[in-house]
Amino acid sequence: MLRLGVDVGGTFIKAGVVDENYTILHKVSVPTEGDAGYEDLVRNIARAGELAAREAGFDLKEFSSAGIGIPGLLNPKTGVVVLAPNLSGGWRDVPFRETIQKLLPVPVYVGNDANCAVVGETLAGAAKGNENVVMLTLGTGVGGGVITDGKLFVGGRGLGAELGHMVLQMEGAPCACGLNGCLEAYCSVTALVKQTRRAMELDLRSAMHEYAKEAGLVDGRTAFECSKRGDKAAMFVVENYCRYLANGIGSLVTTFRPDVVLIGGGLSNQREYLMDKLNALLPRYVFAADVIGVPPILRATLGNDAGTIGAAYLDQV
Amino acid sequence: MLRLGVDVGGTFIKAGVVDENYTILHKVSVPTEGDAGYEDLVRNIARAGELAAREAGFDLKEFSSAGIGIPGLLNPKTGVVVLAPNLSGGWRDVPFRETIQKLLPVPVYVGNDANCAVVGETLAGAAKGNENVVMLTLGTGVGGGVITDGKLFVGGRGLGAELGHMVLQMEGAPCACGLNGCLEAYCSVTALVKQTRRAMELDLRSAMHEYAKEAGLVDGRTAFECSKRGDKAAMFVVENYCRYLANGIGSLVTTFRPDVVLIGGGLSNQREYLMDKLNALLPRYVFAADVIGVPPILRATLGNDAGTIGAAYLDQV
Repeated sequence: MLRLGVDVGGTFIKAGVVDENYTILHKVSVPTEGDAGYEDLVRNIARAGELAAREAGFDLKEFSSAGIGIPGLLNPKTGVVVLAPNLSGGWRDVPFRETIQKLLPVPVYVGNDANCAVVGETLAGAAKGNENVVMLTLGTGVGGGVITDGKLFVGGRGLGAELGHMVLQMEGAPCACGLNGCLEAYCSVTALVKQTRRAMELDLRSAMHEYAKEAGLVDGRTAFECSKRGDKAAMFVVENYCRYLANGIGSLVTTFRPDVVLIGGGLSNQREYLMDKLNALLPRYVFAADVIGVPPILRATLGNDAGTIGAAYLDQV
Repeated sequence: MLRLGVDVGGTFIKAGVVDENYTILHKVSVPTEGDAGYEDLVRNIARAGELAAREAGFDLKEFSSAGIGIPGLLNPKTGVVVLAPNLSGGWRDVPFRETIQKLLPVPVYVGNDANCAVVGETLAGAAKGNENVVMLTLGTGVGGGVITDGKLFVGGRGLGAELGHMVLQMEGAPCACGLNGCLEAYCSVTALVKQTRRAMELDLRSAMHEYAKEAGLVDGRTAFECSKRGDKAAMFVVENYCRYLANGIGSLVTTFRPDVVLIGGGLSNQREYLMDKLNALLPRYVFAADVIGVPPILRATLGNDAGTIGAAYLDQV
């Protein structure tokens, strides 16, 4: 049977037709239209799904189910989105599944976008074949998802597993969420850029100044690329960033004991350069690592498709 | 049907006959004999169970199951205890369930002691009727247990949920486990005593000196009792300790979204004095607290019986 997977982002809605081998047969991407009202945005999401099916030559009625990943806090059981600040003026306590179910002819399942990503990677990507997986998506923020005993772990009312907002440094750096010291406040790309700027201010001769000038901005690449070329200030930034991240991952391993940890998002493009450092650091930050060992940290491999595939299979986890 | 629950500690083995209303009909406590070899200690555990049944007027054969809580890392599925440093010279990778199953006439289940405590409190104690519970036991160390969706959460291979060793302060205070900055390194009674001593060294006129002299020692009560009497240095210790603990609990709430958080162990004897402070602080440390709210922090009510009752019902969670 075919399944529909939809990944709703702040900018684009991506919808894909997914087969039973977890392959995306066809996908479409349409603008989210962030200023549309709730009802209009829900209609856009439904239409994106219908479009994907039609373009692939199918009728949605032939599908076994549709899964939709939303960037926000939601309860998968009730289908209520409690908070999605990036969707059309901010969704709050909207009965999303109920609303969209009226527009689609197949059973609809909903999930958090980071949770969809870990489902996709576990079924078809870098964590394939594992029963226990933790995934962090490092981007503007830090998203997280957990598979435990083959099931998606979502916490009470589906509102847990907000791994980006676990504490890393009590009373530490301010986080966009309003708390202090969250993992996200140290390990997001946004945080890395702040750390990069700070080091550049300290070292006016750092190669990062030249690199940023050529690139036209300071971004998540600045410190990493200059570190590869041996720039001391950049190496300092990368070393510290990797320690923060390894410490956060260590705490997640202590809590969830995954068989594998995945890193997704923009920063995962640093590939072995990042993964090797993290894997070398991890044992320092895991409880009883000498007795139980530590899981490998791997790069997620499906990119944006993870969310689409995972959404399509939400009913299975 | 009756069930046997056994709580194995470093000093005593407590065994209880538990009925279907979660009532302990009879219990016995025998010395663990920490210097006995593995086989001897397992025999002691089995005998404690038989003794409890016999003294209550039953034959173990009439029981539906036996559950045994162990202070260590173990895999409930395989029954292998990976690490239990406080049992007879340190157990490591012992096939505990297999060994004890040969000595007992009913199916045996095994669990971590802190996990048994949260099961007991959820079935019959302070968290009764809740589907999502986090419990911290504050003693020499910090033990933790999680119930999610009515099931015991144990992580991959049963080795997760080591809540005392989640990070609270990256590169922070050294922990007995060898890591730095663990929740336990700030929130155990051992940590509180260190914090108390430090404040006493700073304030030679603090009432804590007199209190400790009369008590004959500095312990987990010193700062709390003197804080209640208005001693500034003691209030400072208690205020900081509560912030550490509330921050740790906040991170656990963000991760697990429990309906209720329980505090057990010696420090829970501070009752409302501690719980009121923690409940007041908690919203500061929970992700999206203004939208989702925060759970109440309550004192565990079953004391040592929680472990026995929970062990007896390990097969049900």
